[in-house]
Amino acid sequence: MHQKAAHDPTSARRPARERTGVWFVGARGSVATTATLGLAAIAAGLAEPVGCVTARPPFDGAPLPAFADLVVGGHDISDVSMVKRAELLVEAGMINARLLDATHAALERADAEVRPGYDPHLRAGSAGSSGSAGHPGAGPESQGRAAERLAADINSFRTRHDLARVVVVDLASTEPPAETAPEFEDLDLLQAALADPARTVLPPSSVVAYAAVLAGAPYAGFTPSASMHLPVLLELATQRGVPVAGQDGKTGQTWLRTVLAPAFEARGLRVLSWAGTNLLGGGDGATLADPQAVRSKLASKNRGLQDLTGTGVTPLHIDNVPDLGDIKVAWDHVHVEGFLGSRLTLQTTWSAYDSMLAAPLVLDLARLLALADAAGLGGPVPELGFFFKDPWGSDVHSAADQAAELARWVGHAADRAADRTPTETPHQS
Amino acid sequence: MHQKAAHDPTSARRPARERTGVWFVGARGSVATTATLGLAAIAAGLAEPVGCVTARPPFDGAPLPAFADLVVGGHDISDVSMVKRAELLVEAGMINARLLDATHAALERADAEVRPGYDPHLRAGSAGSSGSAGHPGAGPESQGRAAERLAADINSFRTRHDLARVVVVDLASTEPPAETAPEFEDLDLLQAALADPARTVLPPSSVVAYAAVLAGAPYAGFTPSASMHLPVLLELATQRGVPVAGQDGKTGQTWLRTVLAPAFEARGLRVLSWAGTNLLGGGDGATLADPQAVRSKLASKNRGLQDLTGTGVTPLHIDNVPDLGDIKVAWDHVHVEGFLGSRLTLQTTWSAYDSMLAAPLVLDLARLLALADAAGLGGPVPELGFFFKDPWGSDVHSAADQAAELARWVGHAADRAADRTPTETPHQS
Amino acid sequence: MHQKAAHDPTSARRPARERTGVWFVGARGSVATTATLGLAAIAAGLAEPVGCVTARPPFDGAPLPAFADLVVGGHDISDVSMVKRAELLVEAGMINARLLDATHAALERADAEVRPGYDPHLRAGSAGSSGSAGHPGAGPESQGRAAERLAADINSFRTRHDLARVVVVDLASTEPPAETAPEFEDLDLLQAALADPARTVLPPSSVVAYAAVLAGAPYAGFTPSASMHLPVLLELATQRGVPVAGQDGKTGQTWLRTVLAPAFEARGLRVLSWAGTNLLGGGDGATLADPQAVRSKLASKNRGLQDLTGTGVTPLHIDNVPDLGDIKVAWDHVHVEGFLGSRLTLQTTWSAYDSMLAAPLVLDLARLLALADAAGLGGPVPELGFFFKDPWGSDVHSAADQAAELARWVGHAADRAADRTPTETPHQS
Amino acid sequence: MHQKAAHDPTSARRPARERTGVWFVGARGSVATTATLGLAAIAAGLAEPVGCVTARPPFDGAPLPAFADLVVGGHDISDVSMVKRAELLVEAGMINARLLDATHAALERADAEVRPGYDPHLRAGSAGSSGSAGHPGAGPESQGRAAERLAADINSFRTRHDLARVVVVDLASTEPPAETAPEFEDLDLLQAALADPARTVLPPSSVVAYAAVLAGAPYAGFTPSASMHLPVLLELATQRGVPVAGQDGKTGQTWLRTVLAPAFEARGLRVLSWAGTNLLGGGDGATLADPQAVRSKLASKNRGLQDLTGTGVTPLHIDNVPDLGDIKVAWDHVHVEGFLGSRLTLQTTWSAYDSMLAAPLVLDLARLLALADAAGLGGPVPELGFFFKDPWGSDVHSAADQAAELARWVGHAADRAADRTPTETPHQS
Repeated sequence: MHQKAAHDPTSARRPARERTGVWFVGARGSVATTATLGLAAIAAGLAEPVGCVTARPPFDGAPLPAFADLVVGGHDISDVSMVKRAELLVEAGMINARLLDATHAALERADAEVRPGYDPHLRAGSAGSSGSAGHPGAGPESQGRAAERLAADINSFRTRHDLARVVVVDLASTEPPAETAPEFEDLDLLQAALADPARTVLPPSSVVAYAAVLAGAPYAGFTPSASMHLPVLLELATQRGVPVAGQDGKTGQTWLRTVLAPAFEARGLRVLSWAGTNLLGGGDGATLADPQAVRSKLASKNRGLQDLTGTGVTPLHIDNVPDLGDIKVAWDHVHVEGFLGSRLTLQTTWSAYDSMLAAPLVLDLARLLALADAAGLGGPVPELGFFFKDPWGSDVHSAADQAAELARWVGHAADRAADRTPTETPHQS
Repeated sequence: MHQKAAHDPTSARRPARERTGVWFVGARGSVATTATLGLAAIAAGLAEPVGCVTARPPFDGAPLPAFADLVVGGHDISDVSMVKRAELLVEAGMINARLLDATHAALERADAEVRPGYDPHLRAGSAGSSGSAGHPGAGPESQGRAAERLAADINSFRTRHDLARVVVVDLASTEPPAETAPEFEDLDLLQAALADPARTVLPPSSVVAYAAVLAGAPYAGFTPSASMHLPVLLELATQRGVPVAGQDGKTGQTWLRTVLAPAFEARGLRVLSWAGTNLLGGGDGATLADPQAVRSKLASKNRGLQDLTGTGVTPLHIDNVPDLGDIKVAWDHVHVEGFLGSRLTLQTTWSAYDSMLAAPLVLDLARLLALADAAGLGGPVPELGFFFKDPWGSDVHSAADQAAELARWVGHAADRAADRTPTETPHQS
Repeated sequence: MHQKAAHDPTSARRPARERTGVWFVGARGSVATTATLGLAAIAAGLAEPVGCVTARPPFDGAPLPAFADLVVGGHDISDVSMVKRAELLVEAGMINARLLDATHAALERADAEVRPGYDPHLRAGSAGSSGSAGHPGAGPESQGRAAERLAADINSFRTRHDLARVVVVDLASTEPPAETAPEFEDLDLLQAALADPARTVLPPSSVVAYAAVLAGAPYAGFTPSASMHLPVLLELATQRGVPVAGQDGKTGQTWLRTVLAPAFEARGLRVLSWAGTNLLGGGDGATLADPQAVRSKLASKNRGLQDLTGTGVTPLHIDNVPDLGDIKVAWDHVHVEGFLGSRLTLQTTWSAYDSMLAAPLVLDLARLLALADAAGLGGPVPELGFFFKDPWGSDVHSAADQAAELARWVGHAADRAADRTPTETPHQS
Repeated sequence: MHQKAAHDPTSARRPARERTGVWFVGARGSVATTATLGLAAIAAGLAEPVGCVTARPPFDGAPLPAFADLVVGGHDISDVSMVKRAELLVEAGMINARLLDATHAALERADAEVRPGYDPHLRAGSAGSSGSAGHPGAGPESQGRAAERLAADINSFRTRHDLARVVVVDLASTEPPAETAPEFEDLDLLQAALADPARTVLPPSSVVAYAAVLAGAPYAGFTPSASMHLPVLLELATQRGVPVAGQDGKTGQTWLRTVLAPAFEARGLRVLSWAGTNLLGGGDGATLADPQAVRSKLASKNRGLQDLTGTGVTPLHIDNVPDLGDIKVAWDHVHVEGFLGSRLTLQTTWSAYDSMLAAPLVLDLARLLALADAAGLGGPVPELGFFFKDPWGSDVHSAADQAAELARWVGHAADRAADRTPTETPHQS
């Protein structure tokens, strides 16, 4: 069985500091390409890990895999290579041309590790040239078979590169909100459905999440798509000792909101409304121009804010403005009641390359989930809530509280990992 | 001796929950008037204490004096009464006319407790009708005599109203930065200078601070003026067991900066520059239009920010825009380096009635310093740094860290106060 | 016939300077109440006509009715009186309490001139106490009968107050976009439909516009509702010599856009996208929270902008933020291409009481349409496009060009009016 | 005499469409380098003249020199070549690397036409390798001799390239405000002073302006430095038939203000205060960090605004923020009184590469001054006020009015030029 390796007790005991795989779902997108390019630049000493949470105290003393020990692979349904994607980002002014020159070879190496992703619109066998994609001319691939194929890709990557573990990070395009189904609550029902080629009970992101569990690979859900966030999958991850964290990376406007809202609360000031708008172009802008897809995003963006402020008046929009490219501009207007019924307003305008915000956090998650795995944790890791708009297993949304929680957790996880791996010397294969 | 009462051990043991005096230096200014009016409105159930830190968990369970148990008096060199000041604030649209109607009597009562402040430009005896101001026609009042006069006013207020203690809060206009002097370091030198009617060694705010120590009155320095922040005065406060806190209330833009800057730091993002500008009218705008006075303010506004971000590029301006009245508008532009040399910007625009921000914090300080006094603390209370741009005895500037520190401190102080006052029943006089 | 008086040739020759009626459709709403209160304050010398275009050169020399010669009446379907509305605006902080005291009587006088408006949901006879509303217990009122009733109200008002003319201004709530119909193009078809009590072919705003034409009353459409903007009505107004202007008052964000967009164009800079969002509360916020009603508004807001810039990327939102009351906050983000492919951005944040912007422009329109009428103009007056988002009879959107056009027009219209009214002495009735 | 050629009546009659020199004072700075590079790109069809006023109607039909017919030379006191400057701008992200590759040769050609500028701190002969800089080892160069040397450079450039005329554009660093002197009013006094090697009566920018007049070269003062703006020089330019225009290019924030302020005025709204701040890095940021130099700039930035709005409350700052490079960020806060004493605010945030705004306008000025010269105009051309913060010979500041004036002027000037040059065929040398 594919998941056998994951359950091999020796594997989980390999220390976090060892060579670790980072398996991007959506490996040829902007965020994964930027992260891969950045990893190469950092490893080569051409860039500092600015924007990485784990590159500074107290994390810099923790037993995390070094940036140079992260090896990239992934799934994607796109044929546009990482190098081509990076060239587009250079043209858009986001990435420095010389930095691409210096990391070109590393991007090509990573791209060679990209396997065809799960595409529910494709029949089995048409997914490309990968041998693992099924037999040419075969009938429809069941979701169960697809998940096994994806898990096999991850396991093969781990073995091929002798990696202590592989962390899967979902960076694929946002899906519309999933309808609920009885199969999401019951493993037997789910497995029956997965075996049936005629059924597509899981949203695509959840097929991938299931594959990660099968492969025993720690998993981060960086998008608002359902992915691992189905009761049956979270339970399975817990049972099999696979640490998972999500959901929907908290990179810009939402992060800012979870910085500010608790601060108003600590001042005893009462937020009356928090209105916002987002402008962005790029692929993300186009995806979110779809009114269905954007619903997932808007819901996860607002949940924490309403929780933190107690107000339900939080109108929010995401507009596709193609000329902005990967730049995200977000405006917020906060209307607050102060002393004696007085009113104050705070407006914020945030402007940043979205992928440049996400990429370092993705690397952080890979490092931290490697530690979680070495520490023997399984299921949702609530203390990784710092990274997410909608944290699994936690209702803490305050960025400051999350940062404090994360710092404490790393200490505990490091102790626990040390207990499980008597010597922190590199693993002998 | 004036300070005798302050040293009366029974006094210090009176519980914090008892009736407490709040003695405003600058009692007829906007902030003190707003705080007094607000106190009356809260006590009468006409307004909630929105904007008060201590009105919410965890502080609402602490043994602090009730809002209704705060009694207001103060010093001022102005003849414009609190009622008149409040009428101006109504005209300016800051205060609701009906609220003034409802609190008119309370303002008049408080104004009747206002005594002539220390004015270095006045000769003794010319300070007004107060009996404590010296003998008419006398020669110049020495700073020592002035301080004794001020302390006597405070003590008389305490006795007259049977208050457990009186907390002094400096809300007077900002002074230019004080030149340093040997007397600021040595009590003997200072006392010699204070006795000499020909010398004015202390800045006016420090004469008042000295008077607070003489009266054994807990003291908060809410302005950037030197006040208690001279080595000799802080030491004296410590020796005499007088708790003090300062300096320069952190109410708007600076508070926002100390919320945001640590958040960038926690993300591993690198602040390159943080430029800002402030527009305000009112008396404060006019005072700060003086290039000397504004130097104090700008220095204290920037100190924490430079500490938190590591950047020295923090240009900052304060402009007098009379038509804005008491509204303060602050714009900040934060330029940040992210992943791979990318840049992001955050702009914030803050608009609020400045006195409405300060007034509730001033009430918080009165309540918390009453607790500090009941707990037997003397000298700077670093855990009150939450309220200040330039906290005495602390180099913590992060608003979130300060909030956590404050919450912990209140618990400890409450325990300590309970130990010192065996029963929390009201004091029997 | 009701419209007889309007066609009385002597009427149209009465000079523009005479006493003039202003008939507000939606007379008890915020804008009409503010305009009425303001008119009283200006007439009494308590306020200057700040925000009125016609109070300054070159208009102050034109033969327009004096502010003190404007007499207010109107239609409304609401029972909340103008005084009550004004009290709400005082509470919301928009209007000064003392100003309401001083204008209370004038508001009551105006409110006594308010007649039941056209409400398609009411049966005839149930519209209130007005004698003109039909016979109690009668069957459904046909739209034709309704229009005659409304026209009779206007004529009666004119006669009762011996007014030279009455200008109708539609300030009622925004309707959803009207479906098109053959009756909108053909007067015979329309009149047949209007006579049939079972049919409601016209949107309510157009019934009112039709009534204005019947009454020979100059008409301004200050909302995006269809109103006069049906081919058949515009033609009828032209035939009957009734000057009309519209559509949708250009008061804030849209005005700003039509100031800025031509300026970019004059610089040879290329607007790539112009994204915006509006926050507002009040009744307007609630009305526009309806996704159908907001469609009319968004369409008219964007039309001019797309015309001026050539870009189709103009995402725009209107959010209902009840806590803002009548304050409208609008944020715009303009992304512009400059020299050699460089990019520049301009952001604007506009914050204003919406009714305070609209009210003076409404008074301007009443004065200018009185002049148009005295000048014998009929049908759309394109030179009044300055006041509208979607000007009838004009494709000029640039605010500067419109201002220049308006100034020229006033000169010509004054000449023409002078030719028609040999002496500018007050009319002898 | 150097100026002989300029007075050659045949010269002035050469049509504007002919090959024209553009002589940049400060040729190796950012603006001149960007303009030169852009000119090459436009001439080669690699870029459109976006941001050029004269590339669109009604100017595109006027008899202006084609972009491809502009030939660049100039003065500078810097040794950093235009290519090197362009490389710095590429590194800063302002200019596309490929565009520099494509224009490299053109930049080198232009740089070969750069001659040592006037540097009052240098003695004659030390100005570099140029043969025109004086004899090595000579004593101090009088300002008169310096001006002749500079004029000779311009004349030589014209002859060498057979140019119809050479337009001088001052783009050098801003000087502190000049003290006034009797020599600024009287040509005889001036010439005596200029002849004296011991005296430096003129600010450096005015030595250059004088040289332009000597060479009969049309002149634009794009900086706030005194330059041509001395009574004696303006008079001399008029006498000699040299068209001149200035002062201080209106490119960003000030342009925006002169767009907005007249629009408020047209609405009858009353500007109470207009506060602003500018952040910029680059060489300009460093220059303006000097409190003396910035005085010139702030004065010229505020003059028009105060004129347009009538308010004197216009606090303004320019901060040097090196990390912003050539990006200028400007924030404005406009506080406006509306109807019935209500207040509205408009905030604008402008962010742009400053040199990218200036460069196309500089090219426009070269083309338009060529036309002015062909039309036989001398002295200040007030209709070019569109381009300047502080227009010579005009008190029109409204950007819309200036645009209309400019359009009219071009028509008249074209007619006049046609009258003077019977055939618009290229000049026969």
